[in-house]
Amino acid sequence: MKKNLTLFLVLVFTTGLFATGQSDSVVKGQDLSLQKAKYMFLFIGDGMAMPQITATEAYLSANRASAPGVEKLAFTQFPAQGLTTTYDAGSFITDSASAGTAIATGSKTLSGVINMDETRTKELKTIAEYAKESGRKVGIISSVNLDHATPACFYAKEESRNNYFNINMQLAHSNFDYFAGGMVRVDKTPEGQKSAHDLMQDNGWLMASNRDELNALVPSDKQVYAYYNSSFTRNSLDYAIDMEPEDISLAEYTAKGIELLSANEEGFFMMVEGGKIDWACHANDAAASIHNTIAFDNAVKEAIKFYQAHPEETVIIVTGDHETGGLTLGFAGTKYDSAFAEIDKQLMSYEAFDHYILTPYKESHKEGGELADILPEIEKNFGLSDLTDYELEMLVSAFYRSMGSEVNESSKTQDYLLYGGYEPLTMTITHLLNQRAGLAWTSYSHTGVPVQTFALGAGEELFNGYYDNTDIFKKMYQLLFPEITVALAQ
Amino acid sequence: MKKNLTLFLVLVFTTGLFATGQSDSVVKGQDLSLQKAKYMFLFIGDGMAMPQITATEAYLSANRASAPGVEKLAFTQFPAQGLTTTYDAGSFITDSASAGTAIATGSKTLSGVINMDETRTKELKTIAEYAKESGRKVGIISSVNLDHATPACFYAKEESRNNYFNINMQLAHSNFDYFAGGMVRVDKTPEGQKSAHDLMQDNGWLMASNRDELNALVPSDKQVYAYYNSSFTRNSLDYAIDMEPEDISLAEYTAKGIELLSANEEGFFMMVEGGKIDWACHANDAAASIHNTIAFDNAVKEAIKFYQAHPEETVIIVTGDHETGGLTLGFAGTKYDSAFAEIDKQLMSYEAFDHYILTPYKESHKEGGELADILPEIEKNFGLSDLTDYELEMLVSAFYRSMGSEVNESSKTQDYLLYGGYEPLTMTITHLLNQRAGLAWTSYSHTGVPVQTFALGAGEELFNGYYDNTDIFKKMYQLLFPEITVALAQ
Repeated sequence: MKKNLTLFLVLVFTTGLFATGQSDSVVKGQDLSLQKAKYMFLFIGDGMAMPQITATEAYLSANRASAPGVEKLAFTQFPAQGLTTTYDAGSFITDSASAGTAIATGSKTLSGVINMDETRTKELKTIAEYAKESGRKVGIISSVNLDHATPACFYAKEESRNNYFNINMQLAHSNFDYFAGGMVRVDKTPEGQKSAHDLMQDNGWLMASNRDELNALVPSDKQVYAYYNSSFTRNSLDYAIDMEPEDISLAEYTAKGIELLSANEEGFFMMVEGGKIDWACHANDAAASIHNTIAFDNAVKEAIKFYQAHPEETVIIVTGDHETGGLTLGFAGTKYDSAFAEIDKQLMSYEAFDHYILTPYKESHKEGGELADILPEIEKNFGLSDLTDYELEMLVSAFYRSMGSEVNESSKTQDYLLYGGYEPLTMTITHLLNQRAGLAWTSYSHTGVPVQTFALGAGEELFNGYYDNTDIFKKMYQLLFPEITVALAQ
Repeated sequence: MKKNLTLFLVLVFTTGLFATGQSDSVVKGQDLSLQKAKYMFLFIGDGMAMPQITATEAYLSANRASAPGVEKLAFTQFPAQGLTTTYDAGSFITDSASAGTAIATGSKTLSGVINMDETRTKELKTIAEYAKESGRKVGIISSVNLDHATPACFYAKEESRNNYFNINMQLAHSNFDYFAGGMVRVDKTPEGQKSAHDLMQDNGWLMASNRDELNALVPSDKQVYAYYNSSFTRNSLDYAIDMEPEDISLAEYTAKGIELLSANEEGFFMMVEGGKIDWACHANDAAASIHNTIAFDNAVKEAIKFYQAHPEETVIIVTGDHETGGLTLGFAGTKYDSAFAEIDKQLMSYEAFDHYILTPYKESHKEGGELADILPEIEKNFGLSDLTDYELEMLVSAFYRSMGSEVNESSKTQDYLLYGGYEPLTMTITHLLNQRAGLAWTSYSHTGVPVQTFALGAGEELFNGYYDNTDIFKKMYQLLFPEITVALAQ
């Protein structure tokens, strides 16, 4: 019955409003309804577009079914789905700052800019700030440092995403309720100044640096800063593929956020970023990307549980900010074949391999070494055995480049195309494993293909179609403030 | 008002039917309505997935607007849009035969098989055959030979797509009304047997081999075979980028089909394939793919004109059968930059370059030659001037490979990755031009990413969501036969 009523209202209001021919820029071209989201979840998979999602679903299916197929993630089963363009004001290929600004404020800006317009003079108000003003509690969660571009786009205004100190100061001065995830870059605090951590402590925030402290938190009016710092990948959660039982997952931070913020009569707005999907894809590490996409889906599942208890008042929106790496599900060398289960042979991220194996090896072999020394580790951690001539040749070249061999001027382009500035040996290992699986990449940067957006809950139908990332802000605004939206349009 | 009624019916029937818990396999899981499509268009862009579409829209925008963006094609503006998985019964990466079978019959089968099940024994009935039985006229149009896999999937049953003679015999024996596009492979007719052309002639079909004969056709009860044979790319229309004014376009064949088939009280079913998008993408020729995607959109526009005159009774569905080439909108070497207008510098397809320039050059230089001889043609036809060291090196190697230099055993993998079995020089030219534009490829085969499906008209809302290519058959069946579908489900 709910659905009938909703659609009826959509039709009545749409017809009525479009007939007047009047509308405000905030809602122009939008369907209108009285659907209201007291509780809004916005999940952003950084660097997560259709290839990342499909690779994950194909991998899951390859492990569970005998026939080819996709094992759908929780969020890809949402009833409403659309495609979303991501270009920014200056480039067809966006960065996370301009993409985050578009989603959070509805305005295009230049790459690198956080919530300021193209002239870098006018500050833009974010959907999280609108939500906070309405009495909702606000939570910002990310698997990377909470002053990184995407989370920053919900609370900060800054000319450059690289101004970490300015950004984490704005976090510490914000009136938001729950920040959780990778710790902010306190290492960027200028000499003699108070760090964001110290400032929050002084101002009575509840600080949680480990699982015990996180678990001990209970709903209150105090602001919460729950931070994590991986042992070797600084200021972020570990890659899901590298996580040990004691590590805190994105899903745990999300569940705790729901517990703390839902004790509020006015509801909440919660942004959850899967930030390391992007980092894995920059490094062309498909296994790390796939496992982090699954971890991201696990965080969405926490929101789904909440939705099931409050279906009329909750909306969950899942999107990406851009694609990273030019991932595709097909490689010239494997033609029409694929073997996604090969991904299971990878036991650690590129970064863990660098940290635990390659870096110590290089340090102990400054006088030189041979690929054969390290091949057993490559076989053990990536399943690369029975090497073809081509594979061996690629590994040998990469090994010597990692060990410090020089590149002459004329080969620099080729060298970048092969390794993208990462550890040549590690990059070659993941490239070869991905290729065996039937996965390939075209870039170490972002690309310009659209992302997918999914929605479940109140007003979900607004998210069908083919629209721009700035429209996501408009649709969210409409669902947070249907009365204002309707009034503006009349 | 129409929309209110439709949605109301959808809701009533959905609620009613799901409550019974009964449904036939044909309609299982489908929303039901009484929406009926008297006129159904199915457009299939072969090899056309989101990257092909977005590359075209980005190219169009780069030529028309100063800020980054997409200039939307006609069909991407359709109100309903979904993502469609394409894997077949034996491989995550489908071929056009199994993909065509899935769309035309709702059944998965093995690569290469035309409308038979996985055991290659059971024949499957196609949506076009159902439509014909209902009294609708049927038209099959393609820019490639009409006995190629995709068009064959609407009228033939054959163990292998390579059995061209068997397939074109089935075309000549079919009771469909209008076949138009690339001429069938009469060159595959066995010695002493009658060709499909002769058979159709004997049986009184109207034959049209050029524009005058096509224009002269008027509605009648006679079957029509309107065929085209390009001067140098056999059994297909020329690439749009190579077309001269006297060449017949896919849009023209579509417009004539509408004229001939709409003079029928029971309506029509028309399948229109943009077949050479795929061929261009196999050869990693972005410009040829983009211009053929625009030509495909022009054919859709003919259907939109018809829809505007018959909006209540017409549905237009546009989909792809799979992605080809692993195209992405980002290249490692250009990082966050793109320059899609570079594509305009390409004046002919890879195939025209082979035919008109490279092959004659090779024939007149059997004793050897130098890249410098042919560089002016490369600059003139692809705008490749001011070559970097890397670009020059790639061209020199490719030139000598095209001129016949040997590849040693250990380099064969690398050689295939670079050239995919195509002319090395031509492949390198298009790769380098694409890379300057910011476009890159990962394969010379199909890939496994989902395709996009779009719909406009009666029952369009069925095509929102994330579903399989076999579901397209089910949705089409429901719109052709809503009464049967509803009855079966009750």
